[in-house]
Amino acid sequence: MPEKIILEEQGLRDGLQTLTRVFSTEQKLAWARQLAASGLRRIQVASFVHPKLVPQMADAEAIFAGLPSDSSVVYSALVLNVRGVERAIAAGVKHLAISLSASDTHSQRNARMTLKEAKQAFQEMTHLAKAHGIAVRGGIQCAFGCRFEGHIEASIVLQLVEHHLALGVDELALADSTGMANPRSLKALMTEVLRLAGSVPVALHLHNTENKGYANVYAAVEAGVRQFDTAFGGLGGCPFIRNASGNIATEDTVHMLHQMGCETGIDPRAVAQVSLGMEALLEQPLPGMLYKLLQNQDICLI
Amino acid sequence: MPEKIILEEQGLRDGLQTLTRVFSTEQKLAWARQLAASGLRRIQVASFVHPKLVPQMADAEAIFAGLPSDSSVVYSALVLNVRGVERAIAAGVKHLAISLSASDTHSQRNARMTLKEAKQAFQEMTHLAKAHGIAVRGGIQCAFGCRFEGHIEASIVLQLVEHHLALGVDELALADSTGMANPRSLKALMTEVLRLAGSVPVALHLHNTENKGYANVYAAVEAGVRQFDTAFGGLGGCPFIRNASGNIATEDTVHMLHQMGCETGIDPRAVAQVSLGMEALLEQPLPGMLYKLLQNQDICLI
Repeated sequence: MPEKIILEEQGLRDGLQTLTRVFSTEQKLAWARQLAASGLRRIQVASFVHPKLVPQMADAEAIFAGLPSDSSVVYSALVLNVRGVERAIAAGVKHLAISLSASDTHSQRNARMTLKEAKQAFQEMTHLAKAHGIAVRGGIQCAFGCRFEGHIEASIVLQLVEHHLALGVDELALADSTGMANPRSLKALMTEVLRLAGSVPVALHLHNTENKGYANVYAAVEAGVRQFDTAFGGLGGCPFIRNASGNIATEDTVHMLHQMGCETGIDPRAVAQVSLGMEALLEQPLPGMLYKLLQNQDICLI
Repeated sequence: MPEKIILEEQGLRDGLQTLTRVFSTEQKLAWARQLAASGLRRIQVASFVHPKLVPQMADAEAIFAGLPSDSSVVYSALVLNVRGVERAIAAGVKHLAISLSASDTHSQRNARMTLKEAKQAFQEMTHLAKAHGIAVRGGIQCAFGCRFEGHIEASIVLQLVEHHLALGVDELALADSTGMANPRSLKALMTEVLRLAGSVPVALHLHNTENKGYANVYAAVEAGVRQFDTAFGGLGGCPFIRNASGNIATEDTVHMLHQMGCETGIDPRAVAQVSLGMEALLEQPLPGMLYKLLQNQDICLI
């Protein structure tokens, strides 16, 4: 039986927010349509954050107003505080990503909250969203390492998994936005997380910053993970680290998974077309490999 | 017990031969010294091929004449025909890489020989080298796929492994120079190859062309492989395919292996310095990630 893997496209959120250029709402909606047509059934399209802090996402309401009413695709958004949840409710969002960091130092520097305060904020946001019938993805940032603290104890991550589960999150997501995870310890930790999560789906948000992103996908699939966040062309990155590569690329991940005998329902060539268009707009190559390879006429892929 | 992994640095051969620029013998010898100082104990420094076909390697004899007489480092070379073996013997080479392709089409297009003819040539070269006390690495190109033929049957690869073993090769090497391998099928095939090889060491030559190179390293280590070819900065690539990325990067591979608890004896920061120097000379970024990350002051790696 081939494993069915769900990919959530995050290029329009995690990708675009790292670019200096701000794209129009129409352009973003066109990309969303193209990505949905490639077979993606989950697309994160915006974050409801302060427009002064993240001007690339200032049009979150307009994006949700402009999305097609295609019930086969889940369009999600990210929020960082109660104000964001309120805006998402008003915009009719059905799926929200809410998270906190497993690293106390990262939490204080990035969100200006201790881990204890972040838990409190997470509870408030989750209760508010769920009270309005919104599905909540409970995220854990820095689950596999932190550029400030280094190693993150597995016990802290597992405690946060239990914390999120106790609040009734509809899905868990562990993030390695700095690309510090290694396949061997990730496999061990994910085996534990899946055991705790039971029937609650668990997603992984992986970056390829240290070239281990795809090794981590493979290790996670072997551990039993069936859901990943990706970005077309490997867009994304960390604004605090020079030369950091981005998310694992949607089309590269799809290609590897298909080769491994997994099913995704996604056409990697269709996603690669979106990446190619973005490369042309940005006038610089993206980190993904497959869309570049596919520019070679009649290249043989297996 | 941590696994001890041997890496063979091939940037000075597989890397340099894909660049249009030809570097001086002095420059290459300086890199070889720097790479040996980083802890690498195997370095491929040249190929004895026709200087008109590969002008970057025209100084193979001068390279071997200029190498330090450090018996702790194995300096190897690649040959494609009997003339190459003769030159290597005269140059005092102790370790030669001799190979053929598992793809008949690739063999005919690349070496102008059928697989049957290539086997005959391989035998002649191997006998000649061994008669002169040279250690022979018996290679199999296109072991995990071919851009002409697509899938390569595992049975063909296993037959070639037996062919090489019967000739008494000192080491086997399976190559995925087009980056078509996927971790799941590679793990299965390598388990079979290691069983056949017994006490004969088996190396993998992996490229990151489709972003699966490091996933394949991880899968191979789990299968029991303990030897890989790498190139500093991820140099290399395929001259026939536009935008193809190169070898897996030495420092990125070392970093991942160390994180996984394996031992290599190599300092990734020292290798990254070589990559940084090459980036400056070429005035363009190399595919490796780690050397770029290490340019960030005081970056935390785990």
